[in-house]
Amino acid sequence: MRVLVVNGPNLNLLGQREPSIYGTTGLDDLIYMLDGHGRELGMLVEHVQSNSEGELIDILHRAMDCYDGIILNPGAYTHYSYAIRDAVAAIGIPVVEVHISNINARDEFRRTSVIAPVCVGQISGLGLEGYRLALDFFNRYFKEKKI
Amino acid sequence: MRVLVVNGPNLNLLGQREPSIYGTTGLDDLIYMLDGHGRELGMLVEHVQSNSEGELIDILHRAMDCYDGIILNPGAYTHYSYAIRDAVAAIGIPVVEVHISNINARDEFRRTSVIAPVCVGQISGLGLEGYRLALDFFNRYFKEKKI
Amino acid sequence: MRVLVVNGPNLNLLGQREPSIYGTTGLDDLIYMLDGHGRELGMLVEHVQSNSEGELIDILHRAMDCYDGIILNPGAYTHYSYAIRDAVAAIGIPVVEVHISNINARDEFRRTSVIAPVCVGQISGLGLEGYRLALDFFNRYFKEKKI
Amino acid sequence: MRVLVVNGPNLNLLGQREPSIYGTTGLDDLIYMLDGHGRELGMLVEHVQSNSEGELIDILHRAMDCYDGIILNPGAYTHYSYAIRDAVAAIGIPVVEVHISNINARDEFRRTSVIAPVCVGQISGLGLEGYRLALDFFNRYFKEKKI
Amino acid sequence: MRVLVVNGPNLNLLGQREPSIYGTTGLDDLIYMLDGHGRELGMLVEHVQSNSEGELIDILHRAMDCYDGIILNPGAYTHYSYAIRDAVAAIGIPVVEVHISNINARDEFRRTSVIAPVCVGQISGLGLEGYRLALDFFNRYFKEKKI
Amino acid sequence: MRVLVVNGPNLNLLGQREPSIYGTTGLDDLIYMLDGHGRELGMLVEHVQSNSEGELIDILHRAMDCYDGIILNPGAYTHYSYAIRDAVAAIGIPVVEVHISNINARDEFRRTSVIAPVCVGQISGLGLEGYRLALDFFNRYFKEKKI
Amino acid sequence: MRVLVVNGPNLNLLGQREPSIYGTTGLDDLIYMLDGHGRELGMLVEHVQSNSEGELIDILHRAMDCYDGIILNPGAYTHYSYAIRDAVAAIGIPVVEVHISNINARDEFRRTSVIAPVCVGQISGLGLEGYRLALDFFNRYFKEKKI
Amino acid sequence: MRVLVVNGPNLNLLGQREPSIYGTTGLDDLIYMLDGHGRELGMLVEHVQSNSEGELIDILHRAMDCYDGIILNPGAYTHYSYAIRDAVAAIGIPVVEVHISNINARDEFRRTSVIAPVCVGQISGLGLEGYRLALDFFNRYFKEKKI
Amino acid sequence: MRVLVVNGPNLNLLGQREPSIYGTTGLDDLIYMLDGHGRELGMLVEHVQSNSEGELIDILHRAMDCYDGIILNPGAYTHYSYAIRDAVAAIGIPVVEVHISNINARDEFRRTSVIAPVCVGQISGLGLEGYRLALDFFNRYFKEKKI
Amino acid sequence: MRVLVVNGPNLNLLGQREPSIYGTTGLDDLIYMLDGHGRELGMLVEHVQSNSEGELIDILHRAMDCYDGIILNPGAYTHYSYAIRDAVAAIGIPVVEVHISNINARDEFRRTSVIAPVCVGQISGLGLEGYRLALDFFNRYFKEKKI
Amino acid sequence: MRVLVVNGPNLNLLGQREPSIYGTTGLDDLIYMLDGHGRELGMLVEHVQSNSEGELIDILHRAMDCYDGIILNPGAYTHYSYAIRDAVAAIGIPVVEVHISNINARDEFRRTSVIAPVCVGQISGLGLEGYRLALDFFNRYFKEKKI
Amino acid sequence: MRVLVVNGPNLNLLGQREPSIYGTTGLDDLIYMLDGHGRELGMLVEHVQSNSEGELIDILHRAMDCYDGIILNPGAYTHYSYAIRDAVAAIGIPVVEVHISNINARDEFRRTSVIAPVCVGQISGLGLEGYRLALDFFNRYFKEKKI
Repeated sequence: MRVLVVNGPNLNLLGQREPSIYGTTGLDDLIYMLDGHGRELGMLVEHVQSNSEGELIDILHRAMDCYDGIILNPGAYTHYSYAIRDAVAAIGIPVVEVHISNINARDEFRRTSVIAPVCVGQISGLGLEGYRLALDFFNRYFKEKKI
Repeated sequence: MRVLVVNGPNLNLLGQREPSIYGTTGLDDLIYMLDGHGRELGMLVEHVQSNSEGELIDILHRAMDCYDGIILNPGAYTHYSYAIRDAVAAIGIPVVEVHISNINARDEFRRTSVIAPVCVGQISGLGLEGYRLALDFFNRYFKEKKI
Repeated sequence: MRVLVVNGPNLNLLGQREPSIYGTTGLDDLIYMLDGHGRELGMLVEHVQSNSEGELIDILHRAMDCYDGIILNPGAYTHYSYAIRDAVAAIGIPVVEVHISNINARDEFRRTSVIAPVCVGQISGLGLEGYRLALDFFNRYFKEKKI
Repeated sequence: MRVLVVNGPNLNLLGQREPSIYGTTGLDDLIYMLDGHGRELGMLVEHVQSNSEGELIDILHRAMDCYDGIILNPGAYTHYSYAIRDAVAAIGIPVVEVHISNINARDEFRRTSVIAPVCVGQISGLGLEGYRLALDFFNRYFKEKKI
Repeated sequence: MRVLVVNGPNLNLLGQREPSIYGTTGLDDLIYMLDGHGRELGMLVEHVQSNSEGELIDILHRAMDCYDGIILNPGAYTHYSYAIRDAVAAIGIPVVEVHISNINARDEFRRTSVIAPVCVGQISGLGLEGYRLALDFFNRYFKEKKI
Repeated sequence: MRVLVVNGPNLNLLGQREPSIYGTTGLDDLIYMLDGHGRELGMLVEHVQSNSEGELIDILHRAMDCYDGIILNPGAYTHYSYAIRDAVAAIGIPVVEVHISNINARDEFRRTSVIAPVCVGQISGLGLEGYRLALDFFNRYFKEKKI
Repeated sequence: MRVLVVNGPNLNLLGQREPSIYGTTGLDDLIYMLDGHGRELGMLVEHVQSNSEGELIDILHRAMDCYDGIILNPGAYTHYSYAIRDAVAAIGIPVVEVHISNINARDEFRRTSVIAPVCVGQISGLGLEGYRLALDFFNRYFKEKKI
Repeated sequence: MRVLVVNGPNLNLLGQREPSIYGTTGLDDLIYMLDGHGRELGMLVEHVQSNSEGELIDILHRAMDCYDGIILNPGAYTHYSYAIRDAVAAIGIPVVEVHISNINARDEFRRTSVIAPVCVGQISGLGLEGYRLALDFFNRYFKEKKI
Repeated sequence: MRVLVVNGPNLNLLGQREPSIYGTTGLDDLIYMLDGHGRELGMLVEHVQSNSEGELIDILHRAMDCYDGIILNPGAYTHYSYAIRDAVAAIGIPVVEVHISNINARDEFRRTSVIAPVCVGQISGLGLEGYRLALDFFNRYFKEKKI
Repeated sequence: MRVLVVNGPNLNLLGQREPSIYGTTGLDDLIYMLDGHGRELGMLVEHVQSNSEGELIDILHRAMDCYDGIILNPGAYTHYSYAIRDAVAAIGIPVVEVHISNINARDEFRRTSVIAPVCVGQISGLGLEGYRLALDFFNRYFKEKKI
Repeated sequence: MRVLVVNGPNLNLLGQREPSIYGTTGLDDLIYMLDGHGRELGMLVEHVQSNSEGELIDILHRAMDCYDGIILNPGAYTHYSYAIRDAVAAIGIPVVEVHISNINARDEFRRTSVIAPVCVGQISGLGLEGYRLALDFFNRYFKEKKI
Repeated sequence: MRVLVVNGPNLNLLGQREPSIYGTTGLDDLIYMLDGHGRELGMLVEHVQSNSEGELIDILHRAMDCYDGIILNPGAYTHYSYAIRDAVAAIGIPVVEVHISNINARDEFRRTSVIAPVCVGQISGLGLEGYRLALDFFNRYFKEKKI
């Protein structure tokens, strides 16, 4: 089982940017943690980050034949990128949307995700732990599907 | 560590009601599963269900001195019960909101949670698995806090 | 054939409350009239009233195995109780929504029913006669289904 | 007692048009059924259909001295014809609005009736039975008024 | 100079309909009064009334080569007939919109005229006198244009 | 009979300001014309202009015992001065709102008058002629009231 | 003279819950203070608190024959409970709505009261003092009515 | 193959009305051109124009057994005629909506078509050429269906 | 302790204006009553009224060094004067907003106060008694602060 | 004559993605078909696809000196890319917007194009045929311009 | 070259009012600074402040023949004074709107300026420096115009 | 002191694109002018332009350790790029938003900047001069901060 973790705009600054909201752990630490957790679960976890909407679409397309599930944090694109939404809908791989902060408790515009309606589900506000839980979800999801 | 799982209106019909949306597992199975998973994690998991908004508020109040965390699925109250929101804000215990179905992919009115802004976070669309992941979250959350 | 008549909040004051809108006939008279009309049609008509949203949900749930149809006047819950809506959708019994007054001709907020979309239909503005017509509807509805 | 049944745009296609929504009974059968039911009740029931908003207004005007009540299905004009609304308000005859389908359960724009606020009441979603119930309503309504 | 007075839906009931709003003078009296006033001003005043939106458009088209100005009371079409608006814009004759009642002091929906933006101006709330003032306006308007 | 003409903000610039919209006739010429027309009708016409909302309210108050009717062009206050609206409602003198330009054919915000609902009526788009027509209206209005 | 003080959801936590907003005085102290103040004014003051919307409606109904006035703090139900609004309108006893905090200075959703339109008036932001002032109001209100 | 071209309100003035928007070619020229083009494609093209909403509905109904496709320019009815929408949905013939001008580049109200959702598609802004392209579309559409 | 009572537009007409809403007591009587009540409480009460928004701002500014509290009835400015709001926020003196009528039970536009968010609180619907209660509030408020 | 066909995000998946909406023909087939059709018309047709908003803007800029017309399917950027809109407006080449599916018949958000107002026109819902018709349009458009 | 600096409501409290937003420099210091800066640039800078909307309009009118440019900080009138907007549009002198604080980063209602659309431009959030930059702008603006 | 000037989409066409709005000076001239002005002020001014949202985010990130201030013209991304907004908020360098045209005086959608709330301030409508003034602002801003 292979899972791709896709992080969107500004998440390369994780640990540096607004630490009161996003914490002090960096992106490298997150990847390291997920990689390890994946190995425990017998999953191959790969990671990619991009600030570009077009590149994120390309990444999702290329994932079509390579991954069984995608963990997607679309950053601020969450709130307006119908193009990423269409990519998620097009590729037919289960996608779980993850947000580090509680998007319901911040600016009004952050409360709406245009991408979530075509995902399997969404986890928000549980910090970096959210990514790990998404991996756990996929672990169980693939097993159930197999039976 | 003690976690209270609070299920709101119509969740007593779990497994019977609209199985295409909510699946065929009943509430008892869910409780059994969570109870077992809690025991693995060394947590005491208790459960309560009510269709009444007022009773749900009473339950949240009574939880104040008894539990370390709450997993709350407010059912349709999610979308308008400012009274439950106030109860969550008042009791000062961390609450994770869980929805079985992907509330972003259904009726327009289901996309807004008036309770989520005062919760720690929200998990939606991951089925009954969402409850288990919320337990896992609390497991880690309490440990980090302790250190 | 058994039909349950469910009256929601403030309908216990029927005949006392704002008679210019709701008339001077009391709830007991309504029940008596419906009971008699049901007997003529060979139907068992039972009645329950509650001011509590949660109790109304409980009533709807309990009706699942006992009644063939429900006549529901949700009172002011009509306009915001997504929880009652979910209960109606969950139980799989045909429900007809009845309003004594013409809800389209009063306050703006009374014009929207969040419950009607999951009912069979709606009768409003025809006074207490609306309940009787709903009984007549069920009478024919059950017969057609049987054939 | 004389009642005029007025059917608006596209109802001439009844039985042919979108049968999953409107059923397979044609307009002629409906008229025949209402005529018979009227006779049983000792009422004269007449019928007219038009696709034209202006003609519907003319029909309502001409009904002023000829009928005691009107059963009106304004079709899609329901949702925007303030001109028909004004005609209903002007003629001073009691009008009951009838819709075959449950207008609350379809497109958003079908949920608002600009005509209902000046009618006595509204029946929707009860199929062709809705017309018959409206006749029954008038039967009782005239008798009560007489006493 | 020739002026056409065009009255829209339900204005044929003038004097009969809702006299508290529209007064007790009938349409014939209005025409008689305008005819007389026109003669005093040396203007030919003609009148037409229709309840049909399409017919009103036809009337406006036919007026193109026959009249120097139009006094238009579009009745309830005022609030939604973009088709009449287009007709007014198309014919290139000055049109003054007249309303007998104060449309700003009644239902919310009556406050917007979709036709007024392509008229010369609007008179509302001044009763039947509004038509006479519109005639006076045209009298002066034509004279000024001639010089 | 005494009529007060009240002109609001920026109308002192009449003839100078945006002549494509407001024409080239100045405020003095308007007053002169209205004064003469009033004399013909046997009415005393007085005039006052102010750019200040508070002063306009004072003027309306002082008019209570001195005038039989008021012609009011509230300028841009038309669109938001609920305080002037309250003054008009309070003084109990008939007020006709006049606008030189067609307020329906300009910026969106100019389409709403918060004052018109408490006036007798409104004339817009007929240029300075609108004031004269308002005088004519009062002339007839007072005569009818007297009989 | 008898006045019933009705406190809605979460007000049982007064003094414990969010003290920066609601202060540190508990519900018992409030009742004690009001009881004393009532005695000074020669009024019988009774108190009831409930978190349940349905129970609050029951309480209001039962108050019909027992109290001369009601002081109601509907808590978060203020913003959506049309059912409580209907109860207040139905019972025909003067009700004063009281809010401890300034509801205009907090979340947007707290700015609208669906209940206030059927109350005598509203006091907000004056802390627990608001209840005492409402008692003073009733004291004077009953006296004036008596004369 | 038979195609009916239906032109709605004010299109009889084509070539005369607002030529900067609609061009100088008249309706006759358009019909002549489409007739010729149809003949080249081996299609029978017929044409009808009406300013009346009701008549347009009648026309659409009568087309049910006579035509294989309809090219519809509903003029201003595009923006509010749910009755024409229902007619299009009812008749089950493929309809292509055509607009001469770019409806997205004009008044805000012209940007929404209530009819387009039940058509096959829409062509706008390509002038009279839009009708010809619609014919071409049907030419290919029928051929593909046949195979 | 000194309290300034500031009455806004049209309140000089108190007792004359719309007595069904505002009662028949005049402004002088109100001042007399407040003056007396202030003396009983050992407070100096002064009063000022203005119809001018700018003057009201000047008054609030001048109050900065002279008064301990302000009772403000901003009349219709309540609903749009962000400039008065800024003045209240700027001067740093506690302000209680008072409305004689129940602003929640009248026109929609009267339901929003743009000034209340920067006041201590608001009293509405309690008639002239509202001013007296505001004095009582300040009496206690100053005492508590002193301790 | 040279025409550039620009396809936006996710259109590289044509034929693979949601075939029930977009059909089973791939992008290569489309290009081949358009190339052939262009050659018949004596036009040079070139094609480019990108998922990146910025790249699409670059492409439009570079087209300035190389193409006589552009056929643009902006994919989901249609609904929010004001940057692409500005690029279309800036380059001064006629652009026709094409959508394969009927954007009026799908999600609400797909009904608005922020780019269409600065295009010549729009074709939607006619499948891949829409591109061919756009070519035909340009063929005639260039010829007419030449004369 | 003469520039008038016009400061609106509450700006007389500059340096005293909410220093965290507006800083601690007073209005006199600002005038002194601008006067000096004007002299360096060879411009005559004059200043006026008023809390009154009407007076601000009078000031703008009187500026017509006396100044070459106006720097206007309309304070809270920015958000609703269409009357000041009309004055700016009427006088035909270039006006630059200046705000000390970043109006986009504060309350929602502060984000809209009804005056800016008729100004040359707007500077906000740059503190008192904003006024100086506006002077610099005029300095260059007048020079370029002269050439 | 180092300042980075960042120009967004379509600004590479400056001088060519819609010169009535954006003028005829090209981007090179702007850079040359700013470079020179920076040198006078003793500042290093560098410039970058991109049409790609992702690239603009990359640019802002890379600026973190290299520049003291940023002048940002986000072009049309101003109105919807929450991703660029997050980048500005993340990097912690003061950013001034500049628009050449008066964005308040153009299309409605251009009136909102989603980026301005996290900038220091905004200059719009002052042409290319706006960039120079932003440099002047930084010049003074850095000096004041140093002291």
